[in-house]
Amino acid sequence: MIKQYLLAPGPTPIPNEVALAMAETMIHHRTPQFNKIFFEVRDGLQEVFGTKNDVIVLASSGTGAMEAAVTNLFSPGEKVLVVNGGKFGERWLEIGKAFGLDPIDLKVEWGKPVAVEAIEQKFKEHRDIQAILVQASETSTTTWHPIEKIAKLTRNGPLLIVDGVTAVGVKKVPMDEWGVDAFVTGSQKAMMLPPGLGFVALSERAWARTAKAKLPRFYFNLNLERKNQQKGSGAFTPAVSLIFGLRASLQLMRKEGLDNVYARHERMARATRAAATALGMKLLAPESPSPAATGIWTPPGMNADHLLDFFRDKMLITFAEGQDQLRGKAIRIAHVGYMGAFDVVTAIAALEMGLRKFGAEVKFGQGVAAAEEVLMETLR
Amino acid sequence: MIKQYLLAPGPTPIPNEVALAMAETMIHHRTPQFNKIFFEVRDGLQEVFGTKNDVIVLASSGTGAMEAAVTNLFSPGEKVLVVNGGKFGERWLEIGKAFGLDPIDLKVEWGKPVAVEAIEQKFKEHRDIQAILVQASETSTTTWHPIEKIAKLTRNGPLLIVDGVTAVGVKKVPMDEWGVDAFVTGSQKAMMLPPGLGFVALSERAWARTAKAKLPRFYFNLNLERKNQQKGSGAFTPAVSLIFGLRASLQLMRKEGLDNVYARHERMARATRAAATALGMKLLAPESPSPAATGIWTPPGMNADHLLDFFRDKMLITFAEGQDQLRGKAIRIAHVGYMGAFDVVTAIAALEMGLRKFGAEVKFGQGVAAAEEVLMETLR
Repeated sequence: MIKQYLLAPGPTPIPNEVALAMAETMIHHRTPQFNKIFFEVRDGLQEVFGTKNDVIVLASSGTGAMEAAVTNLFSPGEKVLVVNGGKFGERWLEIGKAFGLDPIDLKVEWGKPVAVEAIEQKFKEHRDIQAILVQASETSTTTWHPIEKIAKLTRNGPLLIVDGVTAVGVKKVPMDEWGVDAFVTGSQKAMMLPPGLGFVALSERAWARTAKAKLPRFYFNLNLERKNQQKGSGAFTPAVSLIFGLRASLQLMRKEGLDNVYARHERMARATRAAATALGMKLLAPESPSPAATGIWTPPGMNADHLLDFFRDKMLITFAEGQDQLRGKAIRIAHVGYMGAFDVVTAIAALEMGLRKFGAEVKFGQGVAAAEEVLMETLR
Repeated sequence: MIKQYLLAPGPTPIPNEVALAMAETMIHHRTPQFNKIFFEVRDGLQEVFGTKNDVIVLASSGTGAMEAAVTNLFSPGEKVLVVNGGKFGERWLEIGKAFGLDPIDLKVEWGKPVAVEAIEQKFKEHRDIQAILVQASETSTTTWHPIEKIAKLTRNGPLLIVDGVTAVGVKKVPMDEWGVDAFVTGSQKAMMLPPGLGFVALSERAWARTAKAKLPRFYFNLNLERKNQQKGSGAFTPAVSLIFGLRASLQLMRKEGLDNVYARHERMARATRAAATALGMKLLAPESPSPAATGIWTPPGMNADHLLDFFRDKMLITFAEGQDQLRGKAIRIAHVGYMGAFDVVTAIAALEMGLRKFGAEVKFGQGVAAAEEVLMETLR
């Protein structure tokens, strides 16, 4: 085998159009040439985020953008509610603690969506909660949290801060319409770019709150960035080549049509779930699965890490592992970004072969057949 | 004119080898493949920094790396001495203030190197100074500060924190030998990469100090990064494509030989200064010029910004402007990174033509001739 397949939930494969755009002649970031590109990118991002407000571009990973959402909105000691149903929920907690907030840990069983009633309950118990911090798609468990419903609770209450790292551009999450106050993502998922850019969009009431937020920030000062980015550059040197690439990827997304992008992700996810189920496997998040990736429990007694090593070293396919309590027990198959029907077929065929290799009884083609039934939908 | 010339001190031109490396097939950052590349890059960085300690790679601009050097080493209210002789000296001050340090502002006339005696004096006045924060090359004024001499003062005293953004890879600054405690740079200067990576190297005593430093940090937590990077990846998703590029640029630097890289920068800078002087122009930093860029005062009555617009719009040459008090009065010509003798010739020929366009009496070829005298040195 010589051909590599990257089927993990980030980094994701880069379209050639994007790779080539990143190799364009370097230009200075304080020139009319760069400003023009940057304004185009800003427009495209607003469309993907579903907002009329500024989407701030940072030279950082998505975690940097998460930190920016915290340090620009809060003051030391303020109480926030954290939905903690996976590794990225934990990350909100860790950021809150690192900066001296008072985070309430709302534990959610891994693989389950948060119950809106549990949030309501916490809001009643603690009248001084300033914000709720949550993932739209909890990548570690491949679970989708009910952001639209949570937004109804927070519209006139605490701020709604959403990690949209495997959500923005994956599924329609219209920020302004729903009432999300801070929406964060990174470049290496649905945006079809290498890692290295973080994005944060704030609502009007969130922008207003930045004025009284006292947590220290300098590199991630969103007001300073906004002032500069509205003029077409950044407060500090932006990651120029990645922004060239971003222009190209936004053009690809616009050409496909955002609704088609969302439908493609949903269809690939559904096909993957159908295939796994047909193979007798159990899903990590059957109740509310994310369209970005599908977590699957490996059969009892089969070490998921050995399976993943086999995929990676013998088939050159990179899936993602289960983390922490899922370690060795689950694998995650991504379908986010520059991926299509036959990436699902590839993933499922590999899964069938891998399962048999490690001793499971598998009827070759059974999972693929179930996937094809779903993938055929648009071709009938 | 159709061909573009980027002759500003960052971003700098990208070698094709680097641009192509960045377009290599995307891989996951937690794989043996990536680990191997990352270890190679770590070795190369240690060589360029002149250190046996870890050089931490961040997905950020150089300013993010400056912030990391501050938040990982200090606690609120601690006193630090800031050498403030330009825009980047001001940046140290701003970062210190943003995070609640007590920075002493050691003002230095723009274009002059800091006087070591002035530092000694401040150390005597304030026995509780924890560190000195300084630029090696103050890019805004194209001045080189005497780091080696300062290091002699700090070896058994306060920490020496150096912004090496247009110094590391430009000139030999052997970190361990001199005794620099924190050394920072970005990717878009001598490293011949697009912007998007920041680097921080710490001395052993600086690493020890991180344990008691109480300033809040999460994304820029250097201990967390060190732990992860020693295993071949990062705490958060690293900027994979830029790291592919970094491997290629480090290979180019090694192939040329670091001493040759340094000599090339020094020669280009000297040729530029000789040319400007031959044209009757005054240098911004005659006393201690940086080898990364040369600042030149425009003749009295000639608006430097108009001249720069002419270069950019009519000749497609991007130089850098004078900032703040230098606005409209000076231009900066870079010779850092992927540049050679004929970039100096280009810059000087353009300068001669631009000066005449704006009414100065210029004898065409006079500056170029002076540059050629210097550039011929290695060819005799």
